[in-house]
Amino acid sequence: MSAPKKVVLAYSGGLDTSIILKWLQTEYGCEVVTFTADLGQGEELEPARKKAELLGVKEIFIEDVREEFVRDFVFPMFRANTLYEGLYLLGTSIARPLISKRLVEIAAETGADAVAHGATGKGNDQVRFELAAYALNPDIKVIAPWRLWDLTSRTRLLEFAEKNQIPIAKDKRGEAPFSVDANLLHTSSEGKVLENPGEPAPDYVYQRTVDPEKAPDEPQIVEIGFERGDAVSIDGVAMSPAEILTKLNELGGKHGIGRLDLVENRFVGMKSRGIYETPGGTILLEAHRGIEQITLDSGAGHLKDSIMPRYAELIYNGFWFSPEREMLQALIDKSQEHVTGSVTLKLYKGAARTIARTSEHSLYSEAHVTFEEDAGAYDQKDAKGFIQLNALRLKLLAARNRRLAGK
Amino acid sequence: MSAPKKVVLAYSGGLDTSIILKWLQTEYGCEVVTFTADLGQGEELEPARKKAELLGVKEIFIEDVREEFVRDFVFPMFRANTLYEGLYLLGTSIARPLISKRLVEIAAETGADAVAHGATGKGNDQVRFELAAYALNPDIKVIAPWRLWDLTSRTRLLEFAEKNQIPIAKDKRGEAPFSVDANLLHTSSEGKVLENPGEPAPDYVYQRTVDPEKAPDEPQIVEIGFERGDAVSIDGVAMSPAEILTKLNELGGKHGIGRLDLVENRFVGMKSRGIYETPGGTILLEAHRGIEQITLDSGAGHLKDSIMPRYAELIYNGFWFSPEREMLQALIDKSQEHVTGSVTLKLYKGAARTIARTSEHSLYSEAHVTFEEDAGAYDQKDAKGFIQLNALRLKLLAARNRRLAGK
Amino acid sequence: MSAPKKVVLAYSGGLDTSIILKWLQTEYGCEVVTFTADLGQGEELEPARKKAELLGVKEIFIEDVREEFVRDFVFPMFRANTLYEGLYLLGTSIARPLISKRLVEIAAETGADAVAHGATGKGNDQVRFELAAYALNPDIKVIAPWRLWDLTSRTRLLEFAEKNQIPIAKDKRGEAPFSVDANLLHTSSEGKVLENPGEPAPDYVYQRTVDPEKAPDEPQIVEIGFERGDAVSIDGVAMSPAEILTKLNELGGKHGIGRLDLVENRFVGMKSRGIYETPGGTILLEAHRGIEQITLDSGAGHLKDSIMPRYAELIYNGFWFSPEREMLQALIDKSQEHVTGSVTLKLYKGAARTIARTSEHSLYSEAHVTFEEDAGAYDQKDAKGFIQLNALRLKLLAARNRRLAGK
Amino acid sequence: MSAPKKVVLAYSGGLDTSIILKWLQTEYGCEVVTFTADLGQGEELEPARKKAELLGVKEIFIEDVREEFVRDFVFPMFRANTLYEGLYLLGTSIARPLISKRLVEIAAETGADAVAHGATGKGNDQVRFELAAYALNPDIKVIAPWRLWDLTSRTRLLEFAEKNQIPIAKDKRGEAPFSVDANLLHTSSEGKVLENPGEPAPDYVYQRTVDPEKAPDEPQIVEIGFERGDAVSIDGVAMSPAEILTKLNELGGKHGIGRLDLVENRFVGMKSRGIYETPGGTILLEAHRGIEQITLDSGAGHLKDSIMPRYAELIYNGFWFSPEREMLQALIDKSQEHVTGSVTLKLYKGAARTIARTSEHSLYSEAHVTFEEDAGAYDQKDAKGFIQLNALRLKLLAARNRRLAGK
Repeated sequence: MSAPKKVVLAYSGGLDTSIILKWLQTEYGCEVVTFTADLGQGEELEPARKKAELLGVKEIFIEDVREEFVRDFVFPMFRANTLYEGLYLLGTSIARPLISKRLVEIAAETGADAVAHGATGKGNDQVRFELAAYALNPDIKVIAPWRLWDLTSRTRLLEFAEKNQIPIAKDKRGEAPFSVDANLLHTSSEGKVLENPGEPAPDYVYQRTVDPEKAPDEPQIVEIGFERGDAVSIDGVAMSPAEILTKLNELGGKHGIGRLDLVENRFVGMKSRGIYETPGGTILLEAHRGIEQITLDSGAGHLKDSIMPRYAELIYNGFWFSPEREMLQALIDKSQEHVTGSVTLKLYKGAARTIARTSEHSLYSEAHVTFEEDAGAYDQKDAKGFIQLNALRLKLLAARNRRLAGK
Repeated sequence: MSAPKKVVLAYSGGLDTSIILKWLQTEYGCEVVTFTADLGQGEELEPARKKAELLGVKEIFIEDVREEFVRDFVFPMFRANTLYEGLYLLGTSIARPLISKRLVEIAAETGADAVAHGATGKGNDQVRFELAAYALNPDIKVIAPWRLWDLTSRTRLLEFAEKNQIPIAKDKRGEAPFSVDANLLHTSSEGKVLENPGEPAPDYVYQRTVDPEKAPDEPQIVEIGFERGDAVSIDGVAMSPAEILTKLNELGGKHGIGRLDLVENRFVGMKSRGIYETPGGTILLEAHRGIEQITLDSGAGHLKDSIMPRYAELIYNGFWFSPEREMLQALIDKSQEHVTGSVTLKLYKGAARTIARTSEHSLYSEAHVTFEEDAGAYDQKDAKGFIQLNALRLKLLAARNRRLAGK
Repeated sequence: MSAPKKVVLAYSGGLDTSIILKWLQTEYGCEVVTFTADLGQGEELEPARKKAELLGVKEIFIEDVREEFVRDFVFPMFRANTLYEGLYLLGTSIARPLISKRLVEIAAETGADAVAHGATGKGNDQVRFELAAYALNPDIKVIAPWRLWDLTSRTRLLEFAEKNQIPIAKDKRGEAPFSVDANLLHTSSEGKVLENPGEPAPDYVYQRTVDPEKAPDEPQIVEIGFERGDAVSIDGVAMSPAEILTKLNELGGKHGIGRLDLVENRFVGMKSRGIYETPGGTILLEAHRGIEQITLDSGAGHLKDSIMPRYAELIYNGFWFSPEREMLQALIDKSQEHVTGSVTLKLYKGAARTIARTSEHSLYSEAHVTFEEDAGAYDQKDAKGFIQLNALRLKLLAARNRRLAGK
Repeated sequence: MSAPKKVVLAYSGGLDTSIILKWLQTEYGCEVVTFTADLGQGEELEPARKKAELLGVKEIFIEDVREEFVRDFVFPMFRANTLYEGLYLLGTSIARPLISKRLVEIAAETGADAVAHGATGKGNDQVRFELAAYALNPDIKVIAPWRLWDLTSRTRLLEFAEKNQIPIAKDKRGEAPFSVDANLLHTSSEGKVLENPGEPAPDYVYQRTVDPEKAPDEPQIVEIGFERGDAVSIDGVAMSPAEILTKLNELGGKHGIGRLDLVENRFVGMKSRGIYETPGGTILLEAHRGIEQITLDSGAGHLKDSIMPRYAELIYNGFWFSPEREMLQALIDKSQEHVTGSVTLKLYKGAARTIARTSEHSLYSEAHVTFEEDAGAYDQKDAKGFIQLNALRLKLLAARNRRLAGK
């Protein structure tokens, strides 16, 4: 790869990406454009502008992409009730392709030939950033400084920062006891004090949800409205996608909902332990399942269930912008045409539980299921034929085995 | 089907199966053998013997099958982290094939040509009983009185009971407000007051778990030991399969764990709403996932995840004794060879959460995952090649699309 | 089910459906509407009109549905390279839903409350006809005379025909040595002389393809053009869907292509043996795979491959009009956007083989694959990292196993 | 990676691996052990011994592994009717893990710390060799000279050979017009003259099968016996696995069976075009399907079909020694317990077609399927209930949609 001439950097304004910014300028003598996104991580973005200016950046992009994030990435993923390895709501994975998309778009706008990110060489995020970038622009260069430079210890990083007059916040002098990623969907923590999966995570790791033991003693009831698979209202109030998720985060955080202590399998081949907090997403998953229970046909639901693990794996591994993810999305979206209605949940001490669901699109038929007289809706005698024909092959198998056993 | 000469009846000793017993005797003039199983439903079985004797039964089988139930049915199913429609732990489904197996075996022992069960024509249980029976004996007759007789109302049933001197407990005079099935794995409730899925279930439906809001304010820590995928100890004390599940039920019930309000899709084509309480099973599922997280390879785990929905569907639909269930079991069991170790969970107000796991069989490598220097365990530069080759097809796609767009 | 008042009958004009026509009139005293479709079965339809008139039918529908059949049913199915049980091209299965669709539509037009078909109670076709009908009109009645009447022997059928003055062609006096179904996609033969799968099928069973041994000694080259997954031209000549299939049938039939002797699993639980002739379809499948080879991405292709067996099963079992088939279709269709180009095949003595394919949409990159210098298109060193990270989990597994073995 | 001290080289005796041998000695100053396997590639192995001796090798392993190859690799794979991308019988893929297994074993025996292979950095074989090696010994070093050295052109290679007194066969002076791999299962050809997939492959590429147009005008009938999924006899004569495949190759080659012109997707991300000749394997696949048709239950068969693409992909990608391949194998092997019997095929001009199959283990029931009176084996009235309950959800869907449409 030839040296980049102009690089768009995913820039948080923090120490690490500031060092990267400077390193790119120094290493390649190239111009750097910064892109700082408000994904709902809960940090001020204007300081990032100031720092970028200080470091001599002329083209600074700071954008609020929360609505796009929830509408075009989070919600489509939730239509599939997506869980990676049975438990993980993919809060980090789903944000990366959006960032890459904007990096590539900004590169086109600004005439840059490269993009850069601050993910390390051990994790999944490098893969997600880069696969997305290459899928959107096959000729783009992607710079991953953590895989390239020799700033391999904290000491060296700080030396580089000092030498280059990058301001270091006091609390960044020492090493953080763990590493954090946050956006509107979740906060993840990993590394350092969490590296032994045989040790419980210390309380101070959790940042976004109250300890269930300290959550309110009174449960709270919430009603979520859905249209075609997406949440559209809370307690009867229509809201935008990002507003919905923000509100659910507030509710979930208050009730200690959405904590997960997980050892997962990274795409790069190793296991890692993460602490995830997904307060609003956890409520949303429960609610989406609740509304599907009455509006989705079993054939549709079982098909969705059966492809979900693969869909989750694709997102986790960074293949959001791939034909197969788009094919699965077409299948999933097709199933959601009637996933419309309302779900009532109870939030209490770490859990969100569906307690009722109603829908004009309901497939639930009290007339069929009732223990009472059903006025001919269902002929119980049909069950005999149903069972007999389902049993036929099993009978033929049993008869074969008997015959061979000489009985 | 010609009339049966001797029938083995799955007999609970309750009013309904007593009526069936009498009806079989009356309708077919045949001898009836009763089979009453202790599956951990928490009822005395000796009264069933007395009632059967009263009704003239000469061959009465009363058996404690709890260990067989957990060892040969529940535990194999849990090796797959089995959930039907994402949520249901299959507590009823998994018990039916065991009952059918014993019915068919007793028929062979006693020279009976038929078996009978008390499941209705609307539900899944008839299918499960009958498919299992036919799979084990292709020539057996299966009698399902609810699909045959004209006792289609409560009034008629009671009339039949009175006419035939079947004792009716006082509390059975009125209709139960819902229908219950219980065994060591779970208690399910459905019907009547639960038939409107838009109405929350009344509190009195729950029978086996305390309301999370009334559960202890202090969390409880429990450690579960696993060997080859099965739980073998609690807090360091080795126990048999049924002992384990009994103990976990006690713990789960006390902490309000394992309640589920679900609208599910029955195999016979309709949706139904059930309230499930699976206290011990819910803890066990969480713990099994916990131990797999460190002992199971990702290739193995993802394959298991991808076939689980089909495995769950087979059990739900009654195909326990089928070649395809046995094939999937072979695959699952193969994966569990190293699922050995120990998981620590916190039980609190309705939830069981893994907080730590350790194993001699662990695949977790702190050397690889560490944020610190890893002494060469992992070469970050390898990630570049990994990403480049994973990206290659995406680049070729993007280049094709550009070319066609004339860019 | 109450008696039907007006019935739309799928009417071929043959003896069997003529008897059904009369039987419906007699049994229910109802009016019968006939629907006779030209699906490309190669029979004159006007005689059916005459017979229907003779039997007193007032509303007679005779329609050429060949284009709709190929465009809306056959082609969508071929986009998935659909094979049931690895071999069968589903020629019968795919025609049934179209017939049911027209029956239900005609019932709506003519005010009929029922539809009727001539499929027996042992086969798949009854299921396909009826599932499709119910999916399109949940209140329609479906009459299946073969499951209802007592005309259970050839003798009785002929008696009924004679008694009711239904003309019997001379060659229908005796029983046919096997049963035939035909449409533009295939001809199937089953039953009677074919019932022993250990006996080779007699030559006279084959009706639509020449014996490969008698096919021309000269191979023939044919070029098929595709657009978005569908065939659109032969040897450069644009044609409609039905024209394409007709032409390919002619070519395939001449070269003995598309014969299949199969024992398959029916949905109703038994195995049956069929002889299928699918001359054009066999060429089309080969060609479609050929064009996908260069235009379809591997992620897309492997996903399609993995869901194909389920898609085939759905069509075979009669679930064309079901949410899950439509979801899978959405996934498949999404994959076909660039399946455009041209395939050259050689037809010779029973086989059609792809020998070349070209496309503007090709993803094949000679620059990448070449054994020659590739001018930097591909860096072989990337393969090292790719392999190392793919190997990482395998190494961790091997290290674990060594550790446990005490080595 | 530190320099290897002793290397086991997969050595064919040809020019390329001789150059590698010398290069390893020169580059690392290390001892080289050679391993030459008779996989049925049809070449003399003793010349390889002479060349190795000439090049100073002291430990020379020459082994006939044909029986192990067919018994432990080819046959297990055929139990699954394995096809990669619908068409490819995986002849190269399945041989690589066996070679790696012996390399690693010989390394252990001879105290070598590394193994080496002659696969390039663009293909799949490097991945297969290396994943297998690492899975069997996590500490082994794998040397892939083609990714390391600077002998990147034919000229340089020949110069190196001359300089190092490696004999060059006359016909190796010029470049081969394509590259070949062969073993008992297949011969593959790729590269150079085959690189344009829009050009038909020249006739001289085919080496192992006669052109179908030049194959005998008389068809040949062959009968293959199976036990538990594996072929055990031909025309009644019991044979070992390798003998069976050798005999089928002879028959297939004579009749022009098993030619395939394919563009496939490599694991490393590019498409490539290959010409495959798999004469015996093609017959074996057809025969195995034939015997499964009558002995395998539909539930078992459909499950196998649905996981086959994933199984094929694993083998193609080099994951033979992986937990997930072994899990799938357990599933597949479980299905084969009754796949025992005999299949008759007709071989003619490029095709092998099943014409009859018989088995004591047959599940085919003429009593059930017959068009004649079936003496009560099957009650056609059962079909009504079967259809009604399968239709129930479709009716509920249709009713819902009507209701919403206000009809």
